[in-house]
Amino acid sequence: MESQNILIKNATIINPLGNGKTEEKNADVLIVEDKIAEIGNAIDESNAEKIIDATDKILMPGLVNTHTHISMSLLRGIADDLELDTWLNDHIWPMEAHLSREYCYIGALLGAAEMIKSGTTTFSDMYFYMDGVAQAVEEIGMRAVLSYGMIDFGIEEKRENEFKENISLIKNHNNTADGRITTMFGPHSIYTTSSELLERVRKEADKYQVGIHIHMNETMKEINDCKEAHQNKRPFEYLDDLGILGSDIVAAHGVWLDQNEIDLIKKYDVKVSHNPCSNMKLASGAAPIGELLSQGVCVGLGTDGASSNNNLDMFDEMKFAALLQKVSTLNPKLATADEVINMATYNGANALGIDAGSIEVGKKADLILVDTNAPNMTPMSNALSSNLVYSANGSNVDTTICNGKVLMENRELLTVDEGHILSEAKRAIAEMKELREAEAEE
Amino acid sequence: MESQNILIKNATIINPLGNGKTEEKNADVLIVEDKIAEIGNAIDESNAEKIIDATDKILMPGLVNTHTHISMSLLRGIADDLELDTWLNDHIWPMEAHLSREYCYIGALLGAAEMIKSGTTTFSDMYFYMDGVAQAVEEIGMRAVLSYGMIDFGIEEKRENEFKENISLIKNHNNTADGRITTMFGPHSIYTTSSELLERVRKEADKYQVGIHIHMNETMKEINDCKEAHQNKRPFEYLDDLGILGSDIVAAHGVWLDQNEIDLIKKYDVKVSHNPCSNMKLASGAAPIGELLSQGVCVGLGTDGASSNNNLDMFDEMKFAALLQKVSTLNPKLATADEVINMATYNGANALGIDAGSIEVGKKADLILVDTNAPNMTPMSNALSSNLVYSANGSNVDTTICNGKVLMENRELLTVDEGHILSEAKRAIAEMKELREAEAEE
Repeated sequence: MESQNILIKNATIINPLGNGKTEEKNADVLIVEDKIAEIGNAIDESNAEKIIDATDKILMPGLVNTHTHISMSLLRGIADDLELDTWLNDHIWPMEAHLSREYCYIGALLGAAEMIKSGTTTFSDMYFYMDGVAQAVEEIGMRAVLSYGMIDFGIEEKRENEFKENISLIKNHNNTADGRITTMFGPHSIYTTSSELLERVRKEADKYQVGIHIHMNETMKEINDCKEAHQNKRPFEYLDDLGILGSDIVAAHGVWLDQNEIDLIKKYDVKVSHNPCSNMKLASGAAPIGELLSQGVCVGLGTDGASSNNNLDMFDEMKFAALLQKVSTLNPKLATADEVINMATYNGANALGIDAGSIEVGKKADLILVDTNAPNMTPMSNALSSNLVYSANGSNVDTTICNGKVLMENRELLTVDEGHILSEAKRAIAEMKELREAEAEE
Repeated sequence: MESQNILIKNATIINPLGNGKTEEKNADVLIVEDKIAEIGNAIDESNAEKIIDATDKILMPGLVNTHTHISMSLLRGIADDLELDTWLNDHIWPMEAHLSREYCYIGALLGAAEMIKSGTTTFSDMYFYMDGVAQAVEEIGMRAVLSYGMIDFGIEEKRENEFKENISLIKNHNNTADGRITTMFGPHSIYTTSSELLERVRKEADKYQVGIHIHMNETMKEINDCKEAHQNKRPFEYLDDLGILGSDIVAAHGVWLDQNEIDLIKKYDVKVSHNPCSNMKLASGAAPIGELLSQGVCVGLGTDGASSNNNLDMFDEMKFAALLQKVSTLNPKLATADEVINMATYNGANALGIDAGSIEVGKKADLILVDTNAPNMTPMSNALSSNLVYSANGSNVDTTICNGKVLMENRELLTVDEGHILSEAKRAIAEMKELREAEAEE
């Protein structure tokens, strides 16, 4: 895609400051190539090849989804309201057995289309057939941090294969697509991988200079199983013993944490991805986000996969994050709207090591416009963050810009054919269901 | 408004059965005047003056919002993330002091516009200047159950005035607007009204044959204060002693309930309005909805006012209801998608005594169409209820019909000028803020 200089005029800007606060101002923003070049009130229009009038719109950083499995969008609604074991064993895993590179590519396009339409510009993914996901990201124009979901269950041969897959992802796709795609290692969790795999992940991550994306402390069962398997150590204590904790780790979930684990997270500056909808829907629990934020931990926000959510709307996720924290602590002052805006933008970008997440000169131009001319956004009384977190949904977003390119304008996707993606997604899931039924009949 | 016969063709119907289950079928639906006249696969098109093609759309009953304060839409975002006392004393009440009939009318139009655009056809309201709210309902075409928020704090003179206000509402508006408006008594709560007021409400409600809408068991403080004031009785025990419990009571919230109170609710067939967003945002707690539903209590769903939510989107509310119940009990099987659909439709209509909430011949034609041609609604894999509860938001609704009239088509409001409502709402809140500032300077 060719870039063009874009001038966004008459915007009301909300900018996260990274300290749980936001600043608001009225200014124009000039985008040159992939970056924010100027912020001010008298920017020369002649510098712009395209002018966007943002009157009655809020300009904010594109949202950063720090934990998802994007191709699982194909499995949206496949089964709900079940115990985790039943859900996984009887529904998710049997369907995943029929995934292919093609289906993961289609699922990624579907998920990316949904994310762009709800204001997300970056996502961090962990799944399979990541080459297909990378192709979708390349085509649709989002920013993504891709990791392969490594699972060895202690089997050496499987372990070798997982490293081959993840290293191949890194070699083929790290820093590709004009820098929009970066990569991480994706050891799935402490209960699906061996200590050998985890220790080698640390070495390879240091060698390739990429981060580590891992599920941590999601359920009480995981904590109890870990203590039983590892001399009464809790998950973060176990990782500390292995010597692999570091500031390049994004730990998804972090629902069940004790103070010693929070201290380890702080000590090593581990990043946490909070996924409230998934944690609620699977009845995993309520993460202590108020506590983590007050202790200075970098907490981002993620949707998890569509099959445990069941959408990828980060506006939904922001409201759930704020409200879950208040009700689970019976403290309405925790997880303020400003803090949640920071989680979904500044903190997410920080967690993923991308140069976006706030509106500053020199930052990547990952920006969205939210239309306030709607009943659910009227009036705008207090802070902009209030209406964005508590009143908005993703459909209030009317323009999405990533890396300086307009991906959606007036709610129309510009880089892909939305109708084609929807019909391809319907075909893919229908074929996967047929494959599963054929298998069941055997 | 003139009615015209409407034929909805090619719809995929989801119909709540009132037992926590739903049925799905493909059929056409003929609306004659204000009612569903025929459901079938070979309805003669010549009977219809208007034909709606519902291909790729889900037809379901319009959503029923069992508890709100609609004119508080003007106070959306006025203050958030605060202790209840601070929020009420320093923000809500000082603003409410500047309400007028005109502002409540404008606020009601704003809230009604938001509800129609998110698929709600009926709301149950408790607030002030209800004559203005009735005017808005009459004009915009929704169905509403209106009550005046009665507060006497034990003062006899005030009590007399409250009865005058509520009885005037009943006399002027019960069964008006082609039957779309009915009324109830609205004793605010047990902590803002005297036992004398509550006992007289029961007598007058029986006399006028209208229901009773009251806040009950919302916070732990309310329970403790009640026990202290009334010989260790909990709120429902106190009302039982007063002899006012009955099947015509809609109790909003019901967050903190013990087994004896649940038994009283069952015994008298009291209806409960669950308001998860408000209960979470104000950190009130998580109502035991799974328990109430399993014991056969009729539980509807409400948004509460926009200032403690901060929107009126019942699709939001459905997802919050399901997810809050799962996480607060750590049981993913509670509050299934089908149960939540029933709460938001069938149960709500039952609670409010309106002849709608399901798709059956002879019922009022309160219906909505949800467009599934959107990334967040693709694929439709399992039950329709899954995508409706877990994936949709109110913006997926494209058509809203109430009492046989189309109020929104292709997301365009047909009975009112949306832009005019938004500008009037902005004017009203700006004037109220000016009044408050002038008062503060005195």
